[in-house]
Amino acid sequence: MIYLDNAASTKIHDDVLDSMIPYLKDQYGNPSSIHRYGRLARKAIEKARKQIAFLINADPSEILITSGGTESNNTALNGIIMKKPSSHIITSSIEHDAILEPCKKLSKNGFDVDYVSVDDFGMVDPKNIENKITEKTSLVSIMFGNNEVGTIQPISEIAKICNSHNVLFHTDAVQAIGKIPINVKELGIDLLSISSHKLYGPKGIGALYIKNGIDIDPVILGGGQEDGLRSGTENVANIVGFGKACEIAKDRLDDNISHMDKLRNSLIEKIHNQIPKVTLNGHPQSRLVNNAHFTFLGINGEDLIIKLDEYGIAASTGSACSVNTQKASHVLESMGFSLEQITGSLRLTVGIFNDEKEIETTVDVLKKIVQELRAVSPFKEKYSFTFEN
Amino acid sequence: MIYLDNAASTKIHDDVLDSMIPYLKDQYGNPSSIHRYGRLARKAIEKARKQIAFLINADPSEILITSGGTESNNTALNGIIMKKPSSHIITSSIEHDAILEPCKKLSKNGFDVDYVSVDDFGMVDPKNIENKITEKTSLVSIMFGNNEVGTIQPISEIAKICNSHNVLFHTDAVQAIGKIPINVKELGIDLLSISSHKLYGPKGIGALYIKNGIDIDPVILGGGQEDGLRSGTENVANIVGFGKACEIAKDRLDDNISHMDKLRNSLIEKIHNQIPKVTLNGHPQSRLVNNAHFTFLGINGEDLIIKLDEYGIAASTGSACSVNTQKASHVLESMGFSLEQITGSLRLTVGIFNDEKEIETTVDVLKKIVQELRAVSPFKEKYSFTFEN
Repeated sequence: MIYLDNAASTKIHDDVLDSMIPYLKDQYGNPSSIHRYGRLARKAIEKARKQIAFLINADPSEILITSGGTESNNTALNGIIMKKPSSHIITSSIEHDAILEPCKKLSKNGFDVDYVSVDDFGMVDPKNIENKITEKTSLVSIMFGNNEVGTIQPISEIAKICNSHNVLFHTDAVQAIGKIPINVKELGIDLLSISSHKLYGPKGIGALYIKNGIDIDPVILGGGQEDGLRSGTENVANIVGFGKACEIAKDRLDDNISHMDKLRNSLIEKIHNQIPKVTLNGHPQSRLVNNAHFTFLGINGEDLIIKLDEYGIAASTGSACSVNTQKASHVLESMGFSLEQITGSLRLTVGIFNDEKEIETTVDVLKKIVQELRAVSPFKEKYSFTFEN
Repeated sequence: MIYLDNAASTKIHDDVLDSMIPYLKDQYGNPSSIHRYGRLARKAIEKARKQIAFLINADPSEILITSGGTESNNTALNGIIMKKPSSHIITSSIEHDAILEPCKKLSKNGFDVDYVSVDDFGMVDPKNIENKITEKTSLVSIMFGNNEVGTIQPISEIAKICNSHNVLFHTDAVQAIGKIPINVKELGIDLLSISSHKLYGPKGIGALYIKNGIDIDPVILGGGQEDGLRSGTENVANIVGFGKACEIAKDRLDDNISHMDKLRNSLIEKIHNQIPKVTLNGHPQSRLVNNAHFTFLGINGEDLIIKLDEYGIAASTGSACSVNTQKASHVLESMGFSLEQITGSLRLTVGIFNDEKEIETTVDVLKKIVQELRAVSPFKEKYSFTFEN
């Protein structure tokens, strides 16, 4: 099997799983218990919190542990807006649904949400954000790197604008973490969402960085865990695994980035050289190192994925999450793509466990499949496909 | 080590962990992905949903998977009340904080919440609920079995009252599940919360049973997982483990109940026979089979726990979760206990992995510790403690 859907989820690193096992076996205490089982669990959580904080240069006290990136995003939006009920939020049209859906609900409940558009590369113009800021604006939420096309936003510039207007800045860094160095202090970020399972850690765990001094309202209430900001018995094993995943990501950041960059570039180059009528979507330079997103003219991306799957290659049309809603990619729509361009899209996302041989095999298979599908494509004449290769 | 804090959390069953391992190793697909990795993960979730449903005689389509009991409770309350914003909730004064805290917030936001009191045994009188029901009442939430004193509420009667008044009935069954047969159809329950880690499954996963036809508002929005009712990439390994834990709990329900009942009764009997001036709190008959909750007059329960811990015995004063808030037990206060009675309380909760020898050792140690602590108790004269044993 060749797994090229690392933006959807990643394989747990062996060292991460090893770190979790004791907490799935004998260290089963509730971290709120006073006895040693409880104390050991508590200690493990606090160690993980440090590891998570260290990855983004935050203080451990600034890390709120959640059940994942989606909950982190929901907490950031609701947590801030509930503290300032008459306020205004600015976000972009290419955010993940974990931002867009809570925003829709906030709009429905009478809150004011504004969306900035993007250019053909999926890039937000910071000036557009500045133009929308009013005295009522409490929060700007712009994703770090896009989950579909990989475009990295001008985060530092956006943060500067927000800071200068006294507006809080949140970024959904679920896709960016581990693929680009993120220093929340240097970048001037106020809130940041990350997820463990995109980082070779377990699913069902994530974090929200909340800069010290920022007050948020909890979404889930109860026993007062996480300083009252996220109640519920802590998912100790997954927290430990997430911490370990962050530690490994920090230690190996440069190596991982250069490994993914090399593979991804090789993939793009080989596809461009060997398959005609393919466009790379998203920004050519400012993009996540693991992301390659194409439009293969005249083909249906879903057919492509199903065929690739038959050859043991795991790929995606775009966001895994959008499968549930069965709608066309709002990201590509925002970038001005036609339905035909959207339909022909394929996302291949490399990871630290992929190698060059897998890239070569994938391109060989893709070339063959694209030819087969184009041979029966209703757009065969329109694009005058040739099949001499 | 002797672990007698099974109400706080339980050891993961070996078969549960075995079932999780493939999803922590090679089956790492995102359940929303189209390729085989995704499909295998999806299939595993749907199998688990059946196992969870089967335990409570629900239909799999009635099981909403959450990040735990606390989220299930929050979802039940907010999910129902947000659909009927002008409505009225009735709950009890002895609920877990995962009910009481969301209720407090609802009150603060202008919703109407009424609390029924309990008797000396921690028992709700169904008539008190009926008296509070008005035309505006949309939901009654009464826990199945209390987490501190173990009292089992008259669930079937309360459900009947709710049904006859067309009011939805939710029960927090986090502590009851696996300790008493629960058939949601026979009992007439509309919504029910359960948690995996109280049932020899992993932490960070739970479920909310929502009877078919009941419409709820989601708390966490995003990619539309769980039929749009709980977004976020599914915690596949933990879901699989939770499913397996439910399957085992169902298969071994009678044996587990009789095992815990025997141990717990032996514990109560031995303590009563060997240690003077001890009272059993909670209902003498209608109580969870794993729960023994005492007041040792003249001693501080926390001292008792710390001493027990030194002897390798894990116990609790009450709810593990209340440690975060450092407040006196609201359950015991509701039952009319004096601060002195509350202070002297100790909860011992047995589980399927305990045995009779552990009970004997625990009582021997407890007898010794109680003598030591009473010898230096400021209440020594008041209770005329004797130390001839």
